[in-house]
Amino acid sequence: MIRIAVSQMQTAGTDISANLTRIQTDAEKAAQAGACLLVTPELGVTSYAGGHEIVTLAEPADGPLVTRLDEIARQSGVAIVAGFAEKAGGAVYNSAVYTDGTGAPLVYRKSHLYGDYERGLFSPEQPSTCLFTHRGMTFGMLICYDVEFPENVRRLAVAGAEMVLVPTATPMGNSGRFIAEKMIPVRAFENQIFVAYANNIGRDGAFDYAGQSIISAPDGTVLAMAGLGEELLTADIDPGLYAHSRAENPYLKDLQAMAAP
Amino acid sequence: MIRIAVSQMQTAGTDISANLTRIQTDAEKAAQAGACLLVTPELGVTSYAGGHEIVTLAEPADGPLVTRLDEIARQSGVAIVAGFAEKAGGAVYNSAVYTDGTGAPLVYRKSHLYGDYERGLFSPEQPSTCLFTHRGMTFGMLICYDVEFPENVRRLAVAGAEMVLVPTATPMGNSGRFIAEKMIPVRAFENQIFVAYANNIGRDGAFDYAGQSIISAPDGTVLAMAGLGEELLTADIDPGLYAHSRAENPYLKDLQAMAAP
Repeated sequence: MIRIAVSQMQTAGTDISANLTRIQTDAEKAAQAGACLLVTPELGVTSYAGGHEIVTLAEPADGPLVTRLDEIARQSGVAIVAGFAEKAGGAVYNSAVYTDGTGAPLVYRKSHLYGDYERGLFSPEQPSTCLFTHRGMTFGMLICYDVEFPENVRRLAVAGAEMVLVPTATPMGNSGRFIAEKMIPVRAFENQIFVAYANNIGRDGAFDYAGQSIISAPDGTVLAMAGLGEELLTADIDPGLYAHSRAENPYLKDLQAMAAP
Repeated sequence: MIRIAVSQMQTAGTDISANLTRIQTDAEKAAQAGACLLVTPELGVTSYAGGHEIVTLAEPADGPLVTRLDEIARQSGVAIVAGFAEKAGGAVYNSAVYTDGTGAPLVYRKSHLYGDYERGLFSPEQPSTCLFTHRGMTFGMLICYDVEFPENVRRLAVAGAEMVLVPTATPMGNSGRFIAEKMIPVRAFENQIFVAYANNIGRDGAFDYAGQSIISAPDGTVLAMAGLGEELLTADIDPGLYAHSRAENPYLKDLQAMAAP
């Protein structure tokens, strides 16, 4: 069993230093709460709403922004998943980095960009299977719109992910509410894995975020769910508790049996 | 706009004649309610719980059972989707037939059999894309466990289905409730299509069915949902009402854009 934390935070716009300080504060709170891993929102370090300023703030994965996240993870003892604009070659990606402060950081790049706003700022990456092991559990990463495609979560689950971590920036509205309340639990259930969905909150430029960050279990139950304010969620993740659900809903096993003629 | 009906019915065990009479009654009620299509539960004609007796009752798609469904559709003016055990070659399939009483009936065979009970009785079919056009709308068919795999609904939606019809025999329990209340609306939303899920109800041999038959719209809203008794649901199906949801959640378009390099 491990305890994880999700920070539903309001970014300080494109003030990277303030956003990093906020993540540091939440990492310290997560450590006090006994968590060993903290998931923060999409583009939480460079801001989601900053428009073309985000592009100018983009950094390579070995730049000072990720180095500072490394330090926060090392100092707090809490591994961090954080969203930032990543510069690589001539391209800028909407990325999330995992760092535990000791090994090399691992970067996932969003494959399914949403709408003209994101496509005007970022390059899409081909769908990738970005897994890491933390305290003996296998985790995958996706970003926001990626998780709305069942294909992306399935790919990670088939590759062995026991939990998928999803920084997001889902706006207010019926769709945002539906995604948090119904789609995220279904993504967990249909793969019999855990899913953590960490949303921005508050108004930020043209965006009003939906909050409702959620941690869902393999049987579709909600382990923790935030409201419409800033919040630090925690949940205990124990795959051993869901053996009955996996036996009753053996989707991955039956999918593979069907695929083989 | 068309109106469809879903019959959440308790079968009379393996009494095929009684089950056909019940479907006739519901087809007449559906006609009175202005519906042009009636969806009935999985194996509703031959029973889900009948064990090896179902195998002995299996009929070819041009046998008297389907011929009687043809007559009911023709007499009532309501097209019918009904589940039956189909004999073909040396195999027995868990099948659903669509008939409007005028054209040749169309048969879909379940691909994803659930558990040892079904695998002991039926042969699985390879996943197939079984579409038909009724009153200008394109429909697909799946059966029960099939719809729990997002791949199956996606395949039909990509092929052009605007609505997927799902006879089912989902048993009582947390999983059954989750599938009806959350997974079916998510299958509709993630493909921006309609889904109708027609469950058995009541006790039948070793099975206690979950009821909660549901008709869900492309935006994930519930157009009609049954409780824990026999019930005839109706709903008006108007794809034109969901243009906003399709524009906000363009999953099929963005999936194809991503697949193309």
